[in-house]
Amino acid sequence: MSATWLGIEEIHKIGDLEASVYGAKASQLRSLTNLGLPIPTGFFISKDVVNESVNVSGFKISRKFSELKGLYALRASPSHRDWGSIDAILNLGMNDRCVQTVGARIGKRAAFNMYRRFISNFSISIFGLEPEIFENIFFEKTRMMDFNDENLLDEVALSTIVEYSKDRFRQEVGSDFPQSLAEQLDLAFVTMSKSWYRPSAKILRNARGAPDDAGVGIILQKMVLGIGNCLSGSGRINMIDRETGEEKLTGYFIPNSQGNDDGSERTNTHLLSEKERLAEGQSIPSLEILHPTSFNKIKNVAKKTLMGLGEAFSLEFSIENDDFYLIDKVIAERSARASVRVLVDLVKSGALTEEQALLRVAPQNLIEFLHPQISTSFLRDVVGVGIPASPGAVSGRVAFSSQYASILNSKGISAILVRIETSPEDIAGIHDSVGVLTTRGGMTSHAAVIARGLGLPCVVGVSSLTMNISQKTIISDRGHKFKEGDMITLDGTAGEVLDGSAEMTQPEISGAFSTLMNWADRHRTLAVRGNADTSQEAQLAKDFGADGIGLCRTEHMFFEPKRLLVMREMILANGEKKRREALTRLLPMQREDFIKFFEIMEGQPVTIRLLDPPLHEFLPHSKDEMRLIANSMNESLSDVMERSKELEEFNPMLGKRGVRLGVTFPEIYEMQVQAIFEAAVHVNQSARHSILPEIMIPLVSTRKEVEFISRRIAQISQSLEKKIAGSINYKLGVVLETPRAALKANDFGDFCNFLSFGTNDLTQMTFGLSRDDAGRFMRDYLEKEVFSSDPFHTLDLEGVGELILIAAERARQSDNFIELGLCGEHGGDPDSIAFCLEAKFDYVSCSPFRIPIARLAAAQASILQKRKICSD
Amino acid sequence: MSATWLGIEEIHKIGDLEASVYGAKASQLRSLTNLGLPIPTGFFISKDVVNESVNVSGFKISRKFSELKGLYALRASPSHRDWGSIDAILNLGMNDRCVQTVGARIGKRAAFNMYRRFISNFSISIFGLEPEIFENIFFEKTRMMDFNDENLLDEVALSTIVEYSKDRFRQEVGSDFPQSLAEQLDLAFVTMSKSWYRPSAKILRNARGAPDDAGVGIILQKMVLGIGNCLSGSGRINMIDRETGEEKLTGYFIPNSQGNDDGSERTNTHLLSEKERLAEGQSIPSLEILHPTSFNKIKNVAKKTLMGLGEAFSLEFSIENDDFYLIDKVIAERSARASVRVLVDLVKSGALTEEQALLRVAPQNLIEFLHPQISTSFLRDVVGVGIPASPGAVSGRVAFSSQYASILNSKGISAILVRIETSPEDIAGIHDSVGVLTTRGGMTSHAAVIARGLGLPCVVGVSSLTMNISQKTIISDRGHKFKEGDMITLDGTAGEVLDGSAEMTQPEISGAFSTLMNWADRHRTLAVRGNADTSQEAQLAKDFGADGIGLCRTEHMFFEPKRLLVMREMILANGEKKRREALTRLLPMQREDFIKFFEIMEGQPVTIRLLDPPLHEFLPHSKDEMRLIANSMNESLSDVMERSKELEEFNPMLGKRGVRLGVTFPEIYEMQVQAIFEAAVHVNQSARHSILPEIMIPLVSTRKEVEFISRRIAQISQSLEKKIAGSINYKLGVVLETPRAALKANDFGDFCNFLSFGTNDLTQMTFGLSRDDAGRFMRDYLEKEVFSSDPFHTLDLEGVGELILIAAERARQSDNFIELGLCGEHGGDPDSIAFCLEAKFDYVSCSPFRIPIARLAAAQASILQKRKICSD
Repeated sequence: MSATWLGIEEIHKIGDLEASVYGAKASQLRSLTNLGLPIPTGFFISKDVVNESVNVSGFKISRKFSELKGLYALRASPSHRDWGSIDAILNLGMNDRCVQTVGARIGKRAAFNMYRRFISNFSISIFGLEPEIFENIFFEKTRMMDFNDENLLDEVALSTIVEYSKDRFRQEVGSDFPQSLAEQLDLAFVTMSKSWYRPSAKILRNARGAPDDAGVGIILQKMVLGIGNCLSGSGRINMIDRETGEEKLTGYFIPNSQGNDDGSERTNTHLLSEKERLAEGQSIPSLEILHPTSFNKIKNVAKKTLMGLGEAFSLEFSIENDDFYLIDKVIAERSARASVRVLVDLVKSGALTEEQALLRVAPQNLIEFLHPQISTSFLRDVVGVGIPASPGAVSGRVAFSSQYASILNSKGISAILVRIETSPEDIAGIHDSVGVLTTRGGMTSHAAVIARGLGLPCVVGVSSLTMNISQKTIISDRGHKFKEGDMITLDGTAGEVLDGSAEMTQPEISGAFSTLMNWADRHRTLAVRGNADTSQEAQLAKDFGADGIGLCRTEHMFFEPKRLLVMREMILANGEKKRREALTRLLPMQREDFIKFFEIMEGQPVTIRLLDPPLHEFLPHSKDEMRLIANSMNESLSDVMERSKELEEFNPMLGKRGVRLGVTFPEIYEMQVQAIFEAAVHVNQSARHSILPEIMIPLVSTRKEVEFISRRIAQISQSLEKKIAGSINYKLGVVLETPRAALKANDFGDFCNFLSFGTNDLTQMTFGLSRDDAGRFMRDYLEKEVFSSDPFHTLDLEGVGELILIAAERARQSDNFIELGLCGEHGGDPDSIAFCLEAKFDYVSCSPFRIPIARLAAAQASILQKRKICSD
Repeated sequence: MSATWLGIEEIHKIGDLEASVYGAKASQLRSLTNLGLPIPTGFFISKDVVNESVNVSGFKISRKFSELKGLYALRASPSHRDWGSIDAILNLGMNDRCVQTVGARIGKRAAFNMYRRFISNFSISIFGLEPEIFENIFFEKTRMMDFNDENLLDEVALSTIVEYSKDRFRQEVGSDFPQSLAEQLDLAFVTMSKSWYRPSAKILRNARGAPDDAGVGIILQKMVLGIGNCLSGSGRINMIDRETGEEKLTGYFIPNSQGNDDGSERTNTHLLSEKERLAEGQSIPSLEILHPTSFNKIKNVAKKTLMGLGEAFSLEFSIENDDFYLIDKVIAERSARASVRVLVDLVKSGALTEEQALLRVAPQNLIEFLHPQISTSFLRDVVGVGIPASPGAVSGRVAFSSQYASILNSKGISAILVRIETSPEDIAGIHDSVGVLTTRGGMTSHAAVIARGLGLPCVVGVSSLTMNISQKTIISDRGHKFKEGDMITLDGTAGEVLDGSAEMTQPEISGAFSTLMNWADRHRTLAVRGNADTSQEAQLAKDFGADGIGLCRTEHMFFEPKRLLVMREMILANGEKKRREALTRLLPMQREDFIKFFEIMEGQPVTIRLLDPPLHEFLPHSKDEMRLIANSMNESLSDVMERSKELEEFNPMLGKRGVRLGVTFPEIYEMQVQAIFEAAVHVNQSARHSILPEIMIPLVSTRKEVEFISRRIAQISQSLEKKIAGSINYKLGVVLETPRAALKANDFGDFCNFLSFGTNDLTQMTFGLSRDDAGRFMRDYLEKEVFSSDPFHTLDLEGVGELILIAAERARQSDNFIELGLCGEHGGDPDSIAFCLEAKFDYVSCSPFRIPIARLAAAQASILQKRKICSD
């Protein structure tokens, strides 16, 4: 045997083995041999050689293996296990002479049966003959002998079938069935190579993310027959419970079989452990009882693999006359919950470090921990499918209006708000619901954004449901009809709407999850804050381990009905004097809000954004509601309607909002700042926590805007300081969300302690793309690969990212100690978090339900950064 | 006499004289002495010295002039003539002794009269005594003598008044009237200095743009008495006709007067030239007849000044006993038209170079040449004042709807479209009107932008006019009432609305204007193209000297009623097939448009922007019009209404428009490109002009979008090439209008021959500011100086400008020969044009009516750039 050719490595001989050269399966087998576990001897053949065999005519792999004897198997080893598999070709080398040798070892009947199957398989897979040819031979023979059971065929019958098969082969192909190992090997090798490069295979793996030039290695291994006189056969070992992640040895053993490919019947399958057999109530004895020595060997192999590789695998094995070999290993399937449990156990048992464990969890998978899910065993009656806008599952009663949702809620009945689309007026209704369903809209629609913030399950864009507003019904395209009060279930993770209620599994944030989170905190350097607009959300953020509040959007505080009326009066006030009167009534409400926030956060930073949205967003659309406001203001309906009309904007996103409100109606921000300071004084005087409020100015584009607002804030602070005869401390910052502010970031250092990147708006303006309207063409853009991903989900590093880096650099030029944060929805996106760490940000801020994800992502980014520095 | 002190220069002695040291008047006098013209001897006293006199107590300027004898005048010399003036103080040195000496020269009566007036003026201006004191003395004396004419008082009476005045001074001030020149000079100097620093004076000049530290110099000059035995007196010389700019000597002479300050009566004013006297029909003889020698001297002085300084001035002079002195010169007032005529004449006569002449015209002033103006002599009956949105004046009949405007137009009657606001549906109506008036909106409202593009006079935001739509009337706040069909006049330059029709002066673009424009073209390196959406506009651009069309917004071609219906059918089509059918009907219309464009532009570049606005902009709002479309489409109204509803967007500016339409509905751009190519082939085959069409993709933000569209364009070109068996050449470009495209400008070089900066949208997105909505707070922002100027008028060099420079640099990195242009409204703004030249752009493109302005601004920028390079 010679393995001196480039691109071929003898198993057991070579140290480093890269998946990129020999494929993933080779690499996995090598990890087993490194642990001293037995695998059949043989060779890894590199992708280059495989590629050569396809492109060079007359290529003969056998030239490189002139000294091989006995039976061999060829197994494909793609770069990535997910990129498609090719069936192994077993028993290469079987021929008229070998059937005798093998027969001497395992019995003639078994040997002829193996030869018969080999001729059939080889002819079909390598020469493309019809399977019926060989089925017919077999059928004829059994019919002739009046048998109907393969197992009853004796060695003579089987050897006849072999002869018939070889005859038929000769008729079809025009030459004798190949008898030499070399010839069989060459034919099998080229066939296997070519099948990887078939167009259909390529399309399939490309769809799974494989690059165009993805290659395949091939493994040539001595056959383990799995058939013999002593214990022989094949089976599979699993190490964990796939639901819980608990360590648990399960699996099976099939005597006298060659693995999945041997076509033998499964009536004699033995479960491995007695415990499992009892649990399953199977009558066939377990291997544990049948053959305790082998069972113990298997148990040891499982433990060794688990501890040695720090991962729970599913192992394929073969036994030939008591000799045990591992054939393959793949990562054991499991639920997200199980995967965390496994990792925590592995760390505890010393098989993994905390860092290794942290890197093993996809942050996104943590979502399963935070929300109830429909039980996997529950039978779903799906009536509509839409966009999974906010994860988790919930059952509740249909409410077609926010008012009705609130009524249900007040009676203690769970309501699911069902609307064509939601608007800011529905905020109170959404708060009073347990889930939201809209028939229009996308991932960034109002309903989706609000529901994600609140952690409510939400499905949007369910276009198969048609709403009839006047009749108060929704009808599915399959004819289901729901009226108000009917029970439905939303699966916000899958984007499904179900008829009736469903069985749920509840979230679990203690145990292994909580341990993992603690490790994450220990390993991360980037702070993770929460976006919270209400004190409930602040509490959620706190519970999910936030390091503070990074974004409190004060406008959401005004949607409670009583406040909304005052807010509307303020907005529609005729002149500054009346506006100030309304603001005076809002002041104590705002102060109360901030006191609650400060108390919940117990001295952690709380960043409050001054009023941002265009005022028109607060106004109702119906005449009735307008009349209510007019009455309350003692003004005529037409006057109030006209002032409302004047507030309408063509492009509200680019209109009179943010700091533009602050500059044109300074009294609004003055009220808010007054409320913040008074709340801070109140909580500080209670002496429980020391509050340093952070005030943030939205939609800035010039230095003068910041100067204008900062001067006014200073005045308010000074006059309150006089009043309380004490000092008021605060931090001032800017929401960096216009491209101009990013370019001029060095302009703000004189006034600001921090800058917080509002990446939602920054993305909107950098692309010239409204989040609310992008849904109209986003799908098309993603399908046509114009966008590689939705820039509102994944931060556009090239464009928006460059602006952020420019801004960060310039901001630090003006003030090296300025704090930098990110408070858009990207704050919960792992890639964006890594980007922020790289750019030396101080914190990210995301919606409460994404905080655990962000904490883990931040830890992973820190660990990878440390490793990179060490390896540089 | 000594002038060795720092900050004091003897007139005639010093070479360089900077306005920043001695003030503008000093500098102007120096330019006269440089021509060898006579001015009274004396000293320039620097601003530093003046400043010292205010701040150092006990300051005595007389110490520096211990040897002065005779009478002197002090005149203020501010840094800039517009920054306010201070009355000159004349006859300093007049006293009991001097009145005798002067009496010997000019007669005792005149001398005592001069002394009397001096005491009165000095007491009032320096000591702040009440004018009534001296008026009473004079009144008493004339009453006593029973005279009522000053001229009848003899020397005795006047010397009595002098004595009375000195007595009254002593009573009021408590000391004798100062008799020494030194004392008078010190008092006058400090008073003059301090009056410059009065708060009220400072506020006034700040309002005119003076910096806080603006100073004033003072000029001390020997008095020219203007009174004497031989020809004496003062007067003014003008060199041009202020309306036409024609060279023409006019002016007056008043015997025995001291200029404006002497208070003498004007009954004996002589006009200078006999020609003018005859023209004015004055009976008093002209100086030309009265004293031909002096008239000839004046004529020579005027000619010498005109030729020597290359500018037409208004000169103040004094004559004392035949001795002629120039006292002051200021630039002669003139109309914009006159100023061009003067410059052209000066160049022709060799007094100026073309470059000098080009730099003298403010580009903005050219507007007067391009539009009719209301005659200066016409008495205006102003009924409303708004924002002057588009210049020029026009009379026409009120039309409250586009339909009615079109009806009037079809009858040959000039219509003025009067609306609260206009929308894209009014485009046809605006085209059919001679002017537009809206009661709402600002400089960037729809009406304003469209009217400026068409060169129609337009006044917007006339809030004093109230529209009653149902009654079809407008009522002014002063009670004027207009109904449909009534005659009104718009002055778009002044922003005024007048009752009835008005007398107009017509524009003139030949003659001196045309000469100046030719010079501008000779001196500029930056090409100036026109923005033109219709062939009429293209013709206008051509007439105004455009170097091609830089922006043809194809969407405006679809607003003609017949086309609009097809366009709407295309937009509301149910699926791609029906959309393609409608597009097939639009194709020949588009082709016809482009043929016209290409023929008008005679081989000059024509840059065509593919469809840009959100489709919803083309749809009507009324149910009736919707029904029309539904009928034409053979569909139900509700279906069509629903599809229309689906096209509505929250932020249309950031929605599905531009290349996003091109990617999602490729068939629209395909039709347009097909039409462009077919039109080019048609015109090229006629062999009159060689057309190389330029196609421009709007609202790009990623490379993939350009790749997608460019691939399709190439396919269309190839398939047409096959059909015609010839080659199709075109240039492809991108409208750079999103910040992301600017940052990624190096991404487009592979596909594009040119990039054109759409600075309107780029400004919108960089600031996060909608042009349409900015009006709500722009005034406030400008008043509070948050914005130094409206960024939609003046390019924001710091923010948007930096993005443009980044983009230009990166674009050239990817393709050093890529053409760069600017096609936003800033294309007609002189500062932006200078910026584009500096950034090595190839062209700017602006609305037709701004092309001459841009040509001149481009020439000026080139000249200044050349000068800068030479001086570096």
